[in-house]
Amino acid sequence: MSHSGPSPQTPVAIIMGSQSDWPTMRHAAEVLDTLGVAHEARIISAHRTPDRMADFAKAAKADGFKVIIAGAGGAAHLPGMTAAMTPLPVLGVPIQSKALSGQDSLLSIVQMPAGIPVGTLAIGRAGAVNAGLLAAAILATTDDALAERLDAWRTAQSDAIALAPVDQD
Amino acid sequence: MSHSGPSPQTPVAIIMGSQSDWPTMRHAAEVLDTLGVAHEARIISAHRTPDRMADFAKAAKADGFKVIIAGAGGAAHLPGMTAAMTPLPVLGVPIQSKALSGQDSLLSIVQMPAGIPVGTLAIGRAGAVNAGLLAAAILATTDDALAERLDAWRTAQSDAIALAPVDQD
Amino acid sequence: MSHSGPSPQTPVAIIMGSQSDWPTMRHAAEVLDTLGVAHEARIISAHRTPDRMADFAKAAKADGFKVIIAGAGGAAHLPGMTAAMTPLPVLGVPIQSKALSGQDSLLSIVQMPAGIPVGTLAIGRAGAVNAGLLAAAILATTDDALAERLDAWRTAQSDAIALAPVDQD
Amino acid sequence: MSHSGPSPQTPVAIIMGSQSDWPTMRHAAEVLDTLGVAHEARIISAHRTPDRMADFAKAAKADGFKVIIAGAGGAAHLPGMTAAMTPLPVLGVPIQSKALSGQDSLLSIVQMPAGIPVGTLAIGRAGAVNAGLLAAAILATTDDALAERLDAWRTAQSDAIALAPVDQD
Amino acid sequence: MSHSGPSPQTPVAIIMGSQSDWPTMRHAAEVLDTLGVAHEARIISAHRTPDRMADFAKAAKADGFKVIIAGAGGAAHLPGMTAAMTPLPVLGVPIQSKALSGQDSLLSIVQMPAGIPVGTLAIGRAGAVNAGLLAAAILATTDDALAERLDAWRTAQSDAIALAPVDQD
Amino acid sequence: MSHSGPSPQTPVAIIMGSQSDWPTMRHAAEVLDTLGVAHEARIISAHRTPDRMADFAKAAKADGFKVIIAGAGGAAHLPGMTAAMTPLPVLGVPIQSKALSGQDSLLSIVQMPAGIPVGTLAIGRAGAVNAGLLAAAILATTDDALAERLDAWRTAQSDAIALAPVDQD
Amino acid sequence: MSHSGPSPQTPVAIIMGSQSDWPTMRHAAEVLDTLGVAHEARIISAHRTPDRMADFAKAAKADGFKVIIAGAGGAAHLPGMTAAMTPLPVLGVPIQSKALSGQDSLLSIVQMPAGIPVGTLAIGRAGAVNAGLLAAAILATTDDALAERLDAWRTAQSDAIALAPVDQD
Amino acid sequence: MSHSGPSPQTPVAIIMGSQSDWPTMRHAAEVLDTLGVAHEARIISAHRTPDRMADFAKAAKADGFKVIIAGAGGAAHLPGMTAAMTPLPVLGVPIQSKALSGQDSLLSIVQMPAGIPVGTLAIGRAGAVNAGLLAAAILATTDDALAERLDAWRTAQSDAIALAPVDQD
Repeated sequence: MSHSGPSPQTPVAIIMGSQSDWPTMRHAAEVLDTLGVAHEARIISAHRTPDRMADFAKAAKADGFKVIIAGAGGAAHLPGMTAAMTPLPVLGVPIQSKALSGQDSLLSIVQMPAGIPVGTLAIGRAGAVNAGLLAAAILATTDDALAERLDAWRTAQSDAIALAPVDQD
Repeated sequence: MSHSGPSPQTPVAIIMGSQSDWPTMRHAAEVLDTLGVAHEARIISAHRTPDRMADFAKAAKADGFKVIIAGAGGAAHLPGMTAAMTPLPVLGVPIQSKALSGQDSLLSIVQMPAGIPVGTLAIGRAGAVNAGLLAAAILATTDDALAERLDAWRTAQSDAIALAPVDQD
Repeated sequence: MSHSGPSPQTPVAIIMGSQSDWPTMRHAAEVLDTLGVAHEARIISAHRTPDRMADFAKAAKADGFKVIIAGAGGAAHLPGMTAAMTPLPVLGVPIQSKALSGQDSLLSIVQMPAGIPVGTLAIGRAGAVNAGLLAAAILATTDDALAERLDAWRTAQSDAIALAPVDQD
Repeated sequence: MSHSGPSPQTPVAIIMGSQSDWPTMRHAAEVLDTLGVAHEARIISAHRTPDRMADFAKAAKADGFKVIIAGAGGAAHLPGMTAAMTPLPVLGVPIQSKALSGQDSLLSIVQMPAGIPVGTLAIGRAGAVNAGLLAAAILATTDDALAERLDAWRTAQSDAIALAPVDQD
Repeated sequence: MSHSGPSPQTPVAIIMGSQSDWPTMRHAAEVLDTLGVAHEARIISAHRTPDRMADFAKAAKADGFKVIIAGAGGAAHLPGMTAAMTPLPVLGVPIQSKALSGQDSLLSIVQMPAGIPVGTLAIGRAGAVNAGLLAAAILATTDDALAERLDAWRTAQSDAIALAPVDQD
Repeated sequence: MSHSGPSPQTPVAIIMGSQSDWPTMRHAAEVLDTLGVAHEARIISAHRTPDRMADFAKAAKADGFKVIIAGAGGAAHLPGMTAAMTPLPVLGVPIQSKALSGQDSLLSIVQMPAGIPVGTLAIGRAGAVNAGLLAAAILATTDDALAERLDAWRTAQSDAIALAPVDQD
Repeated sequence: MSHSGPSPQTPVAIIMGSQSDWPTMRHAAEVLDTLGVAHEARIISAHRTPDRMADFAKAAKADGFKVIIAGAGGAAHLPGMTAAMTPLPVLGVPIQSKALSGQDSLLSIVQMPAGIPVGTLAIGRAGAVNAGLLAAAILATTDDALAERLDAWRTAQSDAIALAPVDQD
Repeated sequence: MSHSGPSPQTPVAIIMGSQSDWPTMRHAAEVLDTLGVAHEARIISAHRTPDRMADFAKAAKADGFKVIIAGAGGAAHLPGMTAAMTPLPVLGVPIQSKALSGQDSLLSIVQMPAGIPVGTLAIGRAGAVNAGLLAAAILATTDDALAERLDAWRTAQSDAIALAPVDQD
C-alpha cells in the first residue's frame, strides 16, 4: 500500500472514517496490492473532518484518482457525501458496528436517493476485499494487462477450492 | 411560518432534503407557529446540494439561528452532516421511506459516532411535531414567556384527552 | 433504449429476473438514455433460465459490454451469479419484494462473499436510477465527453432543487 | 460419511460453499450415518466455482442421487442455483454468518420465486441435523427399512427427554 | 383439487390453519393439479383444533399420504407440530401476516430445533407454489412418469421467459 | 423448588422444552420460592414429546394447577400449544436463541392468533423472573397473604435502588 | 361494555393511550361482554396524562379491579408504567403503529426489566381479543361459572372450524 | 462529576435506570466535566421507583436543571416518562441490551407520540458522549464562554484525526 501523494499512477483512493476502520479496510488495500493497482489510504471523517472530506472529494478527479473506496460504520455518511462531491465512481464498505453489527452502516450507505449512487459491498472484511476487486474490475475495463491479472486471480481463487471438506480438529 | 431571511428574531431553521419531505416537516413549522416561535424552512439536500448545506450550516450560528431541525429519508445524511458543520443543537426527523418505512432514515440519523450529536425524534409526522416542541423547549430554558406558552400548550394537550373512548361509526 | 444486439457501441447491459422487474429497471435505462449511453435490456432469470444466464455472463465481455446492471427480487441470485461468471463490473438493484419490501432482495445481493463483488444500489426505483448513473460514472472515467454530460446532468440536478418548500394542496 | 464417488447406493449429496461450512454441515452427515443412509460431501461454491456447480447439479440425478442438501452463508446462492439445475429435491441450510447471524443466509435461501423450490431448514447446526433427517424422511417414503430406523431414532429421541430439569453447577 | 377422503392415490395432504389461508394455499393445490398429483386440502388449526391436528398427523402415514404441506401464519405452529407427530416429510408455507408481513410466520416455521424438520418455503403465494413443486419432486424420485411431467413443467416455465422486457402502459 | 407431583398446594407449573432452558427458567422458580408459591418444574418438548405435552396440558387444571409458565426457544411452540389444550392462563418466556438472540422465540410465542392467548414476557432471564412474578400476581388476586408478600417484595425491590451510581473498578 | 365507575362487579379495566386505539381495543371489550365479564374502558395516556395514569394505577386494586388490560402504540409505555404502580396483573396489547407496524409497540411493552411484569399479547386485533380471553382465564381460576362459560366459548370456537377450505369468489 | 444536590450551578441531570447503566452513562458525565458543565447523576428506575421519577421530573425545573439526560435499556421508559412530567428538554440514551443489542431500547425511546419529545442519541457509549455534547450545545446557545469551550473541543477533536491509517500489530 502506498501512502505517497496522489498521482496519475494512483488510480484508487481508500478512505475511511477512523483508524479503527483500518483493520477492515486494509483488506481492500491488500487485494489491490496483489493485483498491482496503486492506491492511497487516508482517514477522512465525514463528521469530524467535513472540510477534509470536501477538499478531498472535490479534488479527487483532478488529482488523478479513478475510483474511490469509502468505508464507514454506524450512521455512515462518508461514502454518500463523497459521492455527492465527485463524479468518480464511489464504492462503499459498511463497517461492522458494535451494537447493530453493521445493519446501520449498510442502510446508511446503500439507501442513497436517486441521483447520487454508491456501489455498496458487504458488511465487513468481505466487503472490503470486494471493494478492491470491484475497483480493479472497473479499471480493467480499459486496462488489458490488469484484466489479465484479475482473470488470473479469479482462476486461482476457483482452483483453490478443495473438492471435499475435511475434518479439522 | 416565515420564509424571510434569517434574523435574530428567527431562532429556528427547518431544513429538509426535498420538497417531498415538506408534508411531514410542515408539522414542525405548525407547532412552532402555534407557540409563537419564528422559524424558516429551506430545502437543502446533503447529496444534491452539498455546498448549499455547507454554506448554511457554517453560517447558521452567525445568522442568528439557535436550533436547527433537519428532516431526511433513506440514507439520511442531512442532520448528521449539518451537525458536523455547526455547534448549534441539531434535531433530526427521520422521514418515512417507501421500501423500509423509515428504518433506514432512523438508523442513518440516530447512530452518529461519538463527537457529533443529533437529537433524533420519531419517524414521520410525530417526529416533526416533536422536533418543533423540543426546539421550543430548548429556547424556553432562557425565555420565560415562551416557557409559559409551552406549559399552556402541554396543559391544553393533557386536558384534551377524553376520559373514555367512544365508538365512531 | 436499444433492444438491438450487443456491439462495441453498447457498453451497458441491463438484465433482470422477470418482466415484472421492468417498471423498476426501466429507470436505469432512462437515465442512460438521457446521458447518451447505449444499453440493452434482457430478461434473464437465474433460477428459471440458468443456462441463458451462463451464456450471457460468460460472453458479456467478448460481446463488448463494459458494465452489467442486474436487478432481481426476493432470493435475488442474478447479480451475484452473473458476477461469478464475468470479470466485468456488476451492479445490483434490489427489487422491492411483496412480503419483505426488498430486505430479502438487498441482503441476497449485497452480502456476497469475498472474491466475487456486486456493487449494490438502493432498493427499488432509486437504486435503478443510481445503477444507471454509476455505470455512466464508470464509463466516464475514460470517456471525457460522457464525463461532461454526466457533470452537466449532476449540475442540472442540483440547480433544480428549490430553495424553500411550498404547500401543495 | 462416504467421500467415494456417487453411485446408486449414495442417495444423498451434501454440498456446501466452503470448507468453513463443514463444522455446521457435518451434522447432516452424522445423522445420515446414524440412520444408515449413504451420502457424499463436496465443496461447491456457487460464486467461485460456478461451473463445478452446474456440472454437479445437471448430473446429479443421472449420478443416482435422490436428494441434495446444500449449505451456504451470507448471499447464499448455492441451494437455489442448484435447485435451478436439477429436478431433484433440494434442501437448504442457512449457515450462521458473522455480521448478520444468518439472517442474510436464511432470506437468500428461503425466499425463492415461484417455480424453483428449496426446502429450507433452520440457521446453523439445528438446520443441518434436520436437513439430514428430512432427507431420510423423503427416502423413507419408499424404503420401509429406513422408515423403521427413522421411527426408532425418533422414539429414542423422545425417550431421552428427562422428566424434570436438574441444576448443573 | 380433490376433497375426497385419503387413499393410496392421494399422496399429498395440504393443511392450513384457517379458511383465510386458502387464497394462498390453493396455489399449492393448483400446481399439483397441473402435475397430475392427487391431493386433499383440510383446515386444521394447531391452536383451535389441536385434537384434529393430532388425529390427522398420527394417522397420515397409515392413511396413505406421502408428503404433507402445511401453511400457517403469525405464531405458526401447524407445520412444526404436525412434523412432531408424523415421520412423513412436512413442508411449511409461511402465510403473509398483517402486522409483520410473514416474518413471524417464517421464523415460527423454519427455526425448528434439531430433531424435527420442516422444509420451509417462501412467504406467501410463491411459497405455496413451491411447496407443491417440492412435494412433486419428492414423489418424482420414485415415479418416472411424474418426473417426466415435472421436467416438462420446468422446461415450459423456462421457455416462457421472454428475451426482453416490454413496456406495458 | 418442589419436584413432587402436582397437588392443590402446587398452583404453578413451570414447563420448558429442554434441560438447556433451565438456567433461564430457574429464575421463575426462584422468585416463586421467595414468594412462597409452590411450583413444579418439568421438561416437556412440544416437538420431541408431543404426547407428554398433551397429557400434561389436558390434565393441568384437574391436577390443581392454576397458572402455567412455559419457556421455549427458536420456533417456540410449547407455550402456544399448551394454551391450546388448557383453559388455564399460560405465560410464555422466550429463551434467548443462538443465531437470532430470541427474536424467533419471541415472535413464535407472542404472535398467537385470536382465540388462544399466551401472556408473553421478555426474552431470557428477565422474562423468567417476570413470569414468576406475574403468576404470583394472578394468584394474589384471591390470596391476601400472598398479596402482602408480593407487596413486600416489590417494596423491597424499590428500596434497594441506590440514589446515585458508583464507579466500580 | 360498561362505562360506569369501578365497583367490585367490574373486575377488568381496559385502558389505552388514545381514542385512536379504541378500534383495536374494543375487541377486548367485546369478548369480555360475550363471556359476561364486567369491564370499564378508559383513555389514559402515559405521556400526555401521567397523573391520570398514576391516580388510576395506584387506586386500581382498591377500586376493585382484578386485572388491567393496557393497549398502546409506538414507544408504548402505558402497560409497563401501570404495572410499576399496581400489584395487579397487567396485560399489554401492542397497537399496530404506522411506520413500524407495531414492532416498536411490541418491544416497548414486552421487554420489561426483571421485577415488573407485563403479560404481552400479539400486535393488533388478535392481541386485544386474547387480552380479553386471558383476563377471563385469570378470573376463571377462582370463578367456576366463568370457567364454564370460557370452556363453552373455546369449544364453540373449535367447532366452528370447517373441515375443508372453500373457494370464495 | 458532581454528586452534590441540585443548584442553579448544576444545569444538567444525568439519570439512569440502574447502576448497571453507569458504565455507559459515565461517558456523558465525563464529557460534561471536560467542558466545565456541572451535572448530577442519579439512579431513577421508571419501573421500580416510579414515585422517585415523578418527584424528580416534576421538580427538575424548579431545582434549577436546564437539560435532562436519561439513559435506559430494554423497554426503556425513563426518558419518555420524564419528558411527560417536565417541560425541560430531555435527551435519551438507549443502553445496549443483552438479547436485542439495544434495538428495543432505541425504539422504546425514540418512537414517542406527537406531544412529548425525547431527543434520542445513538445506542451505547457513543450516545452517552453525544448526549453530554448536545446538552452542552443547548446550554451554549446562551453561554458564550461555554460555546467557546465547545468550539475548542470540536476543533481539537477534528485536529486529532490522523491523515492516514497505520497498522497496529
